This record gives sequence, structure tokens and C-alpha cells, in this order.
Amino acid sequence: MRPSVLNSLTRYLPILDWGRRYDRDALTNDVVAAVIVTIMLIPQSLAYALLAGLPAEMGLYASILPLVAYAVFGTSRALAVGPVAVVSLMTAAAVGNLALQGTAEYAAAAIVLAFLSGLVLLVMGVFRLGFLANFLSHPVIAGFITASGIIIATSQLKHILGIPASGHNLAELLASIWAHLGETNLWTLFIGGSATAFLFWVRKGLKPLLIAKGIKPRLAEILAKAGPVAAVLVTTLFTWVLGLDKHGVAIVGQVPQGLPPLTVPHFDLELWGSLLGSAVLISIIGFVESVSVAQTLAAKRRQRIVPDQELIGLGASNIAAAVSGGYPVTGGFSRSVVNFDAGAETPAAGAFTAVGIALAALALTPLLFFLPKATLAATIIVAVLSLVDFKILRTTWGYSKADFVAVAATILLTLGLGVELGVSAGVALSIGLFLYRTSRPHIAEVGLVPGTEHFRNILRHTVETHPDIVTIRVDENLYFANARFLEDYIYDRVVGDKALRHVILMCSAVNEIDTSALESLEAINHRLGDMGLTLNLSEVKGPVMDRLKRTPFLSDLTGKVFLSQYAAMRTLAA
Amino acid sequence: MRPSVLNSLTRYLPILDWGRRYDRDALTNDVVAAVIVTIMLIPQSLAYALLAGLPAEMGLYASILPLVAYAVFGTSRALAVGPVAVVSLMTAAAVGNLALQGTAEYAAAAIVLAFLSGLVLLVMGVFRLGFLANFLSHPVIAGFITASGIIIATSQLKHILGIPASGHNLAELLASIWAHLGETNLWTLFIGGSATAFLFWVRKGLKPLLIAKGIKPRLAEILAKAGPVAAVLVTTLFTWVLGLDKHGVAIVGQVPQGLPPLTVPHFDLELWGSLLGSAVLISIIGFVESVSVAQTLAAKRRQRIVPDQELIGLGASNIAAAVSGGYPVTGGFSRSVVNFDAGAETPAAGAFTAVGIALAALALTPLLFFLPKATLAATIIVAVLSLVDFKILRTTWGYSKADFVAVAATILLTLGLGVELGVSAGVALSIGLFLYRTSRPHIAEVGLVPGTEHFRNILRHTVETHPDIVTIRVDENLYFANARFLEDYIYDRVVGDKALRHVILMCSAVNEIDTSALESLEAINHRLGDMGLTLNLSEVKGPVMDRLKRTPFLSDLTGKVFLSQYAAMRTLAA
Repeated sequence: MRPSVLNSLTRYLPILDWGRRYDRDALTNDVVAAVIVTIMLIPQSLAYALLAGLPAEMGLYASILPLVAYAVFGTSRALAVGPVAVVSLMTAAAVGNLALQGTAEYAAAAIVLAFLSGLVLLVMGVFRLGFLANFLSHPVIAGFITASGIIIATSQLKHILGIPASGHNLAELLASIWAHLGETNLWTLFIGGSATAFLFWVRKGLKPLLIAKGIKPRLAEILAKAGPVAAVLVTTLFTWVLGLDKHGVAIVGQVPQGLPPLTVPHFDLELWGSLLGSAVLISIIGFVESVSVAQTLAAKRRQRIVPDQELIGLGASNIAAAVSGGYPVTGGFSRSVVNFDAGAETPAAGAFTAVGIALAALALTPLLFFLPKATLAATIIVAVLSLVDFKILRTTWGYSKADFVAVAATILLTLGLGVELGVSAGVALSIGLFLYRTSRPHIAEVGLVPGTEHFRNILRHTVETHPDIVTIRVDENLYFANARFLEDYIYDRVVGDKALRHVILMCSAVNEIDTSALESLEAINHRLGDMGLTLNLSEVKGPVMDRLKRTPFLSDLTGKVFLSQYAAMRTLAA
Repeated sequence: MRPSVLNSLTRYLPILDWGRRYDRDALTNDVVAAVIVTIMLIPQSLAYALLAGLPAEMGLYASILPLVAYAVFGTSRALAVGPVAVVSLMTAAAVGNLALQGTAEYAAAAIVLAFLSGLVLLVMGVFRLGFLANFLSHPVIAGFITASGIIIATSQLKHILGIPASGHNLAELLASIWAHLGETNLWTLFIGGSATAFLFWVRKGLKPLLIAKGIKPRLAEILAKAGPVAAVLVTTLFTWVLGLDKHGVAIVGQVPQGLPPLTVPHFDLELWGSLLGSAVLISIIGFVESVSVAQTLAAKRRQRIVPDQELIGLGASNIAAAVSGGYPVTGGFSRSVVNFDAGAETPAAGAFTAVGIALAALALTPLLFFLPKATLAATIIVAVLSLVDFKILRTTWGYSKADFVAVAATILLTLGLGVELGVSAGVALSIGLFLYRTSRPHIAEVGLVPGTEHFRNILRHTVETHPDIVTIRVDENLYFANARFLEDYIYDRVVGDKALRHVILMCSAVNEIDTSALESLEAINHRLGDMGLTLNLSEVKGPVMDRLKRTPFLSDLTGKVFLSQYAAMRTLAA
């Protein structure tokens, strides 16, 4: 095989790169990490399927083939792919619009959603559209995750109380819970409440206790992650022994035993059309979440990930989920950190985790019959409450009111209108606010800082100016949204100033002059000419100047273009 | 009345300002201009009603009360408000989705559309949202107007040929015309063809002829504008005398005689909901067209218009249209130029035009019975072909490929999908392209131009650099869409350069650092620190610095912030 072919194959199949150097040490480390992640993933995959409104086994299925696909196509050494809380919530929101929970249509729609997400991610990867994810600003993501965490935790209260309740936004959920509160099942509440309390204690209190007993911090950390498995074991046994399912405690019940079935996503154009928007949102949110944890972990070992290839890895995972009875997956934050801390060296750790889950699906599902749903709900609640973090509100309030508005709106709209509208509105709002700010740019009149060649704002610094000359620095690209603003500013500034002979437009902050702005500059040049004034430019950037040279603007200019503002001032003042 | 109250009243009622200085000279000039505009407006108002799919009298009604409302609330001295081609086409597109042409529902929906447009314009005016119109870039407008002109001219061919044809985009129209071509009525074609040829000759040949005969250029220009009235008179007489309506020539027929009826817009939430989007588009397009001609004419006499008050003026005009049986109106380009050239001095000229049209509605409507629709179609075709201008394609191709893409897409989508989708896609695309460019900013490594304190791109200029120091100038605001791009650029640049000790980020082109970018800078600072490098900033703008001072970023910075890049270089090299 020629090296160039191998190179491009390696680009799309990172396994060819790390696979060739795979050795016994890496194998040992990967297997150890896989065992730990498997123990963590079994209760999580069941719980997130519950959150998505799907049968428990679909959580297991989403944790087998997708992990193998990522191991082949992904670039992160530590990312643990599978069902995650936010994507499960988004799946419930998307599919819940089309079918009733518990029906075959609901499960089929979730499979189609995974397939569409996979396609969207693959297309983005092949066309290198990963940059689209950059339009989800950090504050919008932070607000969205916090609001999602609140909705998820609230939605699980019904399982803790043993009552029916539904709703895709906070108000609906709370009203529904309130309406059914009288029907609370005390046995369910006992199990759910104890499990929640136990898991909180495991998270906060167990690790210090283990360390005090002489166990190494890293091992203590990992042992604490096994808390949910302990809760599952104890509450299942308790429910079985006391026959609590006959006292109204909801249990997982029959879970099919065996490997995932081969599924073919239902091809129905209308269904695809109604799920495509949700698939795009899930893909982008899942990608952003996944890439940020992958990048953080890679940096700790001075490795790099390839974002566009990550799209292909996650796309392949979702296609794999769709053909094996799963639902949308992505890289999970807490599991990836555990995987990394447990020593995972290559994506093979994920494949070994898949083997672990496959064994569980083959052998352990009968044991899950008496597992109370309340325990799974407790697992979810404790996991997602760590996502809730209002600090971003304080940070942005102090730093940028526009970002604060974007965060606050994202949180409120997600809580009030649901996840899809919330995050879409957040993205639209942050882009809108950016456009609004650039449409009313900061414009400063500048003068020379004495003893230097440096020019600063006359309102902020003691500077030298010249009565014949005004220098205007626009602190923004000149484009359609602010072209008219600049025109108005310049006319207002020059119209009453009789001494004026030259206007200099200092372009050090102008990285772009589009056609609309060029037309405005032509109009300014023309009208200043009518008033007997010259228009000059200074510090025009190379790429901007290259383009201006292709237009008649420079030959029509009543003044000149100067390399530096200092040269402009010296020449025109002379 | 206290002066402050008077001032704010004058802001909203510009008539209080110019009305107090109104004198006999202004009156004479305004009346002369009004007579000329009235002669031009009678055939135009009938023709544009035909284009909008409405009864002829609605064109007249839209040319009475709206002009009076604009005279009270508008700030332009020369703008001639009334039915215009593009807005008539957009009205047909919006209302055509909801009702069949010729029905009472169709006319009622057009009235509601005028009312909603009026409300949208008033709201934009009161909340000073005129800046929203800036997001329609010049190239998008130019492309939209050109495509609209082509659609309008094509849509009128059916009247010239005397055949039925319909469709809101070019392909539908052409297919429909082609299918009915065999049904062409030869008398209609004769009238329509002759009228078109005559009007083209009037436009191109009459003015030079009149000037050659010793008539003053300005008067010759105005006489040439009376061409449509001559065509109307001659073809009406011809049709009446030969009884051509019995030979299949479509005529205007019965036009109700009298002043406009008082109409109350139909209040139906569902109808309002389906028209609101169209009303917003019509409002913004109408406002942009109107303001640009008003600004051009005002500048010629060193006057100014107030864009936010123009919104209120046009809003009042549309409300007036809705309560007097009209349809959406705005300021027309050609009529305003005629009004200006004919010497209109104040908005009163518009009110006098309204009187002229009211007299026509009272007295002349019976004479319109035998007016062939083909003549009106000829008037429209000749008027709109001057809107068609493909020069913008060549200009933008040479200057900015992104703008070229926006123009070409706007033209193609307007022709292919219709006016509303075309212009919406054009706006979305131009905003998308702007965001895309800012998400991949130009980043230059800079060095000192010898003998100056000036720094330029090392790839474009012969400059001095220092092996210990790299200076990176980002030519863009730092915000969510490009924060990760900058991180990647810096890591790629520094990772292999062992000699490096200091990184300077030159911020002369950075007008904004949002929360996402701040988090990226914190990450860059932290990771450079880990590598033993300092991060320094230079030429940070005042407003940006003010905000950075409110964060822990500056105290955590491994390097320093320098007022000038020259100072940074001198200090760090020492």
C-alpha cells in the first residue's frame, strides 16, 4: 500500500495508527479501565433509558456496538461513549412529540433519531463542518446544561414518589407532580429516598472515609463510583425479598436476555422530516459536550484530538446504535473522566467496556427483574445535580451583560419551553446580540500620545490633535449592518467644524470592508469632497487593501492612503 | 405650551416644524409638483393594483389618505408615497397564498396586510428598531430588486397577450404562459405591444427630441413622464371606438365612482398570524427602499431625514391605507425623483397629490371603463425593467466573493422560489457568510518596520523580529465563534519553537472579548504557563480593558499588558 493511501486511511481510521503500536501494557491498562467503566455504566445505561422513556434494554444496547464503532473511528484515547443524561432528555423531548412512551412507535422513532444523528454527524465530519459547533457559545452551553439538569432531576421525582407525572418543561412537570402528590407510594418513596441519600453520601462522604482508612485517593475515587451498583444490588434484593412489587413499587420487570437485535431504521420520509431538526440539535449538543471533555483529557497527556474526525467517530457510533436497537449516544463527561483516571490508554478500552456490557446483557438481565425504577431515578438525580451550576450567571453579569442575557434567556426558555426551543433560542440570541453590537460599533476620535508614534482615544488619554485634521478610528469591521451608522457618525462630526480640512479614517481595527460598506465609503468620499474636505485612510490591513485596489475607490479618493497613522498626521499637518 | 413639550411633539409631528414656516412660494412649488405627480400617479396606481391582483380602485384609494398621513408624520420633503411595484408584487405573493384573486377575501386580506405593515412600522419607529433594516445588505437588496423586476415584467406578459397565466416564481409563470400561448388575443397583443413600444420610445427618445425642439431639459424630463397618461387616453379611446372589449380585449370595466370607503381591517387572529411574516418583510423592504431614495434626495439639498421618524410616517400611511380601502404603500423611487425635480418643497406636495387623486376618483372613473388592461401592463413592464440591473453581479464578483454569493443566491432564489423566500434567504445567507468569515479570522504574525514604531505582517513586509518573542495580531473580535480557532492557532505556532519565551497578543483589532473568548484566553494563559512561556497583551482598547479589569484574568496573566506594541517589544527583548 502506498504511504499516501495509508495516510488518508489513517485519517479516517485512527485505529490503524494506535493499533499498530498496541502492546501488552496498554492492553492491561485498557482492560482495568474497562472493568471499572462497565460497573459504572450498567446502572447508568438502564437509568438513562428510563429517562429517555425507553425500555431498559435499549440503554444496554446503546452501550455495546456504539462503543466498538467509536474505538475504530474516534481520536480521543479516553472518551467513554454511550447514553448520557442531556441527550437522553433531548431524545425524550423529540420522540415524545410523535408517539406515546411505551409504544413500539416510540422506540422505533428513537432508533430513527439515532440514525439521523449519525448521518448528520458523518456529513458534518466529511464536509469539515465542525466549526458550526463554535456558534454554541460557552455561556449558552452552560445555561442549557444547568437548565437540563434541573428538568431531568424534576422529571425523576415521579419515580421517587411512585406517581404518574409528565411534561417537557418545568412548569408542566411541577404541576403534574403536584396534582398527583396524594397518590405517593410510601414503599417507593422509602426506596427512592434512601437510595438518593445513600448516593449523595457516597459522592460526598465515602471518598474521605476511604482515604482516612488508608486507601489511595485514586482508588477511593473509583470505589465511590461503584455506589450506584451497590444501591442497585441492595434495593433489588430488598424489593424481591419483601415482594414490594405487589405493594405498588414500580420495577424494571422483564428485560430480554441476549445480545442486541439487528434493527433497520424505519424509512418514512414524514418521520425523518419531523425528527431531522431534533437530530441536528442532538448532534451538535452531543458533539460539543463530547469534544470539550475529550480535549480537556487529551491536553492532560499532551495529546491532541481531531475535531472533524470526532464527528465521524460519533457519527459511526450513532449509526451503530441505530442498527443494534439503541438510541442516540455521545461521549459522557463523568464516565470519560473515570475511564481516564482508571488508566485507559487507547480507544480499545471502550471496546472492552462493550464486551462487559454484552456479557451483562447475556447473563445479568434476569437479575434486573426486581430492580426498582426509584433506584434508577435516584442514580439520575444524583448524577445530574452536579450539572446544575448557576456560577455562570454571576460571572457573565460581572463581565458581559450581553452574555448574561444569553445565559439567563437560555436557562429560562429551557425551563419554560423545553430543551429544543431553549437551546435554539439561546443560540439565536447570542448570534443576534453579537450582530447588534457590531451594528453599533465603538467609534473613537484619536490623537497622538506625546513623545510616541501612538494614537489613542482623545476622551481617555492626554493626546495632541491638529485643528485641520480629525482622525476617526472605527473599532469594528465595516459591513452592511454598520455601514450607515458610520456614514451618520462622520457627517455629524464634520458638519459644524469649519476649520476642518482633512478626515482620516484609521483602519487598524477594520478587518473587512464588504460591498455595502464600500458603497458607504464612496458616498462619504463624494460628500466630503463636496464640502471641500479630503478623506484619507491609515493603517489599512493588507488583505483589506488588496481588495480595495481592485475597485475605483482608491483612484477616486480625495485624499491618500497612509501606511501608518503617524505618517498620515505628519504629512497632512505639514 | 412649554418648549420641551413642543419639541417632543415636533419630533413625532414634523408638520409642526415645516408647517410654521410655510409660505406662498412653497405653496406654488408644491402645487406644481403635485399636479405633475398626480398625472403620473393615476395610471401607475391603477397598474400596480392590477399587479397586486386587486380591483383598480384600490390603487386609487391607496394614493389618497396614505399621502395625507405621510405629509403629517414624514420627514422627507420629496418622498412620494403610494403603491409601488415591488410591494405590490409582495402583496400578491402574500395574499395569493390565502385567497383567490378577484374574491372579497383577497381584497380583505390585502387591507389587513396594510394594517399589519402599518403596525410593524409604527412599533419599529417607537422602539427605534430602524437599525434592523441595516441587516439587508446593499447586494441583497440589489439582487432582490432585479429579480423582482424580472418576475413582475414576466407576470404582465399575460395581459399583453390576453391569456390567463399565474405563478409566483419565474418557472411557474413561464410554464403557464407557454401553456396558454396559443390562446393569444391579437387585438390585445396589438394594443399591449404598441403601448409598450410607445412607452419605451417615450422613455428613451422623447426627451432628446423635446430638448432638440428647444424645450428646457427639466421640463422635457417631466413631459416624458406623462407618456403613460397619453397611452391610457389613446388606447382607451381606441378600444371604445372599435368596441374591442367584444373581441376579447380585457378592460378595467366598472370602477366605483367616489371617495374611498371607510374600511375596518378584518380582525381574525388566524389571518393575522398567517400575514404577519409577510407584513414584516414588506415593512422592512418598503422602509429600506423609501429611506434610501429619501436620503439621496435630502442630501442634494443638504437636508436630513430622521430614519426612525420615517418608520412612523410610513406606518401611519399604511394604517391610513388600511382604513380607506387601500393596500400596502411605501415611498416610490421614480415618483419621488419626479416630485423632487418638479420642485416639491415640503411634504404638503404629497397632500396636494392626494387631492388630485381624490378628484380623479370622484370624476374620472367612468372614463376608465374601456381602459385595456394591456396598457396598464405595458406601463408596469416599462417601469420595472429599469429596476433590472445585473451590474451588481460583476461588481461583487470583482470585490467580494461572499457578497457575490449573496447576490447570486438572492436573485436565483427569488426567481426560483418567489419573493418572500428569496429575500429571506438572501438576508440569512449574508448574515451567515459574515459569521463564517468572523469565525475564521485573519491572524498575522507581525514584526517591527525598521526605523518606525510600527508593526506589520512578517509575510508582507520586511520587518525586525526577536527569536525569544512571537507577536500575534488577531484581525477580528474575539467571540464565541472564533475562540477555539485562536486557541488552536497559538498552540500550533508555539509548540515546536524551543527558543520562544514570550507570546504577545496584539489586540489593536480586537474590539470585543466575550465570555467564551475570555475562557479561551484563560486556557491559553494557563497552558503557555505550563510550557514556561509568558502571555502578554498589547494595544488593548479602552472599553475592552475596562471589562478585563473586572475579571481575575489580568492578575493571573503570566506576562503583562502593554499600552503599545512597541513598548511590549522593547521591554520583553531587554
